[in-house]
Amino acid sequence: MANRQWRIASVPQGRLTQDCFTLTESEIPSITDEQVLVRVLWISIDAAGRAWFQADTYRRALQIGDVMPGFAIGEVVKSGSPAFTSGDIVTGDLGWQDYVALDPRRLQRLDADRPLPTYLSVLGITGLTAYLGLTQAGEVRAGDTVVVSGAAGATGSLVGQIAKLMGCRVVGICGSKEKQDWLKTTLGFDATVSHRDADLRGALRNACPDGIDVYFDNVGGPILETVLGLMAPGGRVACCGVVSQYDGDAPETGPRGVPGRLILRNLTMRGFIVTVYQDKFPAALEQLAAWLDDRSLKLTEDVLEGLESAPEGLVGLLGGTNVGKRLIHVGDPAV
Amino acid sequence: MANRQWRIASVPQGRLTQDCFTLTESEIPSITDEQVLVRVLWISIDAAGRAWFQADTYRRALQIGDVMPGFAIGEVVKSGSPAFTSGDIVTGDLGWQDYVALDPRRLQRLDADRPLPTYLSVLGITGLTAYLGLTQAGEVRAGDTVVVSGAAGATGSLVGQIAKLMGCRVVGICGSKEKQDWLKTTLGFDATVSHRDADLRGALRNACPDGIDVYFDNVGGPILETVLGLMAPGGRVACCGVVSQYDGDAPETGPRGVPGRLILRNLTMRGFIVTVYQDKFPAALEQLAAWLDDRSLKLTEDVLEGLESAPEGLVGLLGGTNVGKRLIHVGDPAV
Repeated sequence: MANRQWRIASVPQGRLTQDCFTLTESEIPSITDEQVLVRVLWISIDAAGRAWFQADTYRRALQIGDVMPGFAIGEVVKSGSPAFTSGDIVTGDLGWQDYVALDPRRLQRLDADRPLPTYLSVLGITGLTAYLGLTQAGEVRAGDTVVVSGAAGATGSLVGQIAKLMGCRVVGICGSKEKQDWLKTTLGFDATVSHRDADLRGALRNACPDGIDVYFDNVGGPILETVLGLMAPGGRVACCGVVSQYDGDAPETGPRGVPGRLILRNLTMRGFIVTVYQDKFPAALEQLAAWLDDRSLKLTEDVLEGLESAPEGLVGLLGGTNVGKRLIHVGDPAV
Repeated sequence: MANRQWRIASVPQGRLTQDCFTLTESEIPSITDEQVLVRVLWISIDAAGRAWFQADTYRRALQIGDVMPGFAIGEVVKSGSPAFTSGDIVTGDLGWQDYVALDPRRLQRLDADRPLPTYLSVLGITGLTAYLGLTQAGEVRAGDTVVVSGAAGATGSLVGQIAKLMGCRVVGICGSKEKQDWLKTTLGFDATVSHRDADLRGALRNACPDGIDVYFDNVGGPILETVLGLMAPGGRVACCGVVSQYDGDAPETGPRGVPGRLILRNLTMRGFIVTVYQDKFPAALEQLAAWLDDRSLKLTEDVLEGLESAPEGLVGLLGGTNVGKRLIHVGDPAV
């Protein structure tokens, strides 16, 4: 049996395309003492994957020949480590492949009593990012008017739901009429605007007549600039992502109004990668699980079938084809 | 006796020049019941004065014919209000003129037992801006590496001294060798760099090998962009002013790295106008007075003589001719 791996075929100039990836086959890796062999089951598709091509960040920039990284859930099929045994369900950066041999320190055991995708969405990095970004970076309070961009995406669709649960008025920015309808009808957003609206500023002002208290920013760029102009005094911007800047090589330009508008309106912008709030993960996961159990939070998963669909999954995500959390279903546990 | 008033002669296109102002003479105003007639003694010259031409902000944009506003200290010479009597020393927006008739609600009595300029520098808005900007917006802590731009200016020269008193390492950015020497020798800054250095980034990196924890930004623009690239994880930017953007009409462009670098480094940018911290003024003034009394803080006042020098004072300030707090000495109290 072979191990399929999606490797980098070329570094994109401009938009990412599927032919930046190539599917190779090789032997299933043998493990050394202390290593663990994991079979990949579910892969999380995240816009950050495009950013990994651009520059060294918290990981080295991707290079031709690399296996495409990606956070995933897998099953231990062979273990040289006393810390894991066959059949254990684990999470980690397993990559876009069927099998991977890893140092056990790079794996976390999952006590999975819910459907596995839940641990990549609400009860994973996505849910933590939405909840901790809102409460810590955004310092959200009941009664706030909260605007979220990328509102129909994995994080955005949770941000809006969580802000509603915390007593806020929620306005989503997304890119299509269908998404706008879904956000309002299915997820309970108070209002939505399209970033394709020629008068985004006017539409947002209508939707937020008293100004914006918290902006959860997944996109950066011109939308951030527009929202900054409508923030209420003392408002907070939780900077979570810069999707508008990932899929290209154009030099990022900063939004006008920084720092002038921050000064005049006493605004705070705070960037975060969710791991800075690691000490708050247990309490956050408890709250998220409680909201799932009483059906306050809706799972919004967008599943593509088969490892072969991973490149299409990421390219599509960058173009906005997903609704909710995009996942690749590679396989199921043996048991 | 006449009342001299500096009025707006033209709204500057590009750099401010002295001929944007014209000195008019008129009768000393008579007061209505309830008004107070004030003779101006000391005028504070602030870079914000240039920004008031650009757009409506916390005040209406300046227009041709307006008396130039400006925070000042004066002496009550005639009062129709029971709240004030002749001889009272007061502060308020008295403007660039010899006399002004005002509603008493726009004046504050000063119990002045120190030289009057002190109340426009360390024990006034300037000192409060430096202290509260550092501690509240910048959340400064002992051991931090603090960088301040406009370091030889009124606010910057206090920011650096206060940060030293709080146990920080302090690096100042200014525009001349003379200012660099003065900051190090007289004020005790640990290091300085010139923003005219062709390799500002390299100079700053040498001065801050472990990154920058707090940046007190008085200038915005390209210097802000450069500093953002050198912030340490968890760093804070206190956005106080945008001097680089005041003296011209060019559209302000935002610094690159917003929000990307904020995200990767978990940075916070917080803008403020000092009045948002009004509830903390009494405690702050007590601390500042204590530091003055034990000579921990050096007064750095840059005085020009006579009302006629006010336009030169502001035009020069925007070009960086001042060292410390620039003031116009118009007159002395009668008693």
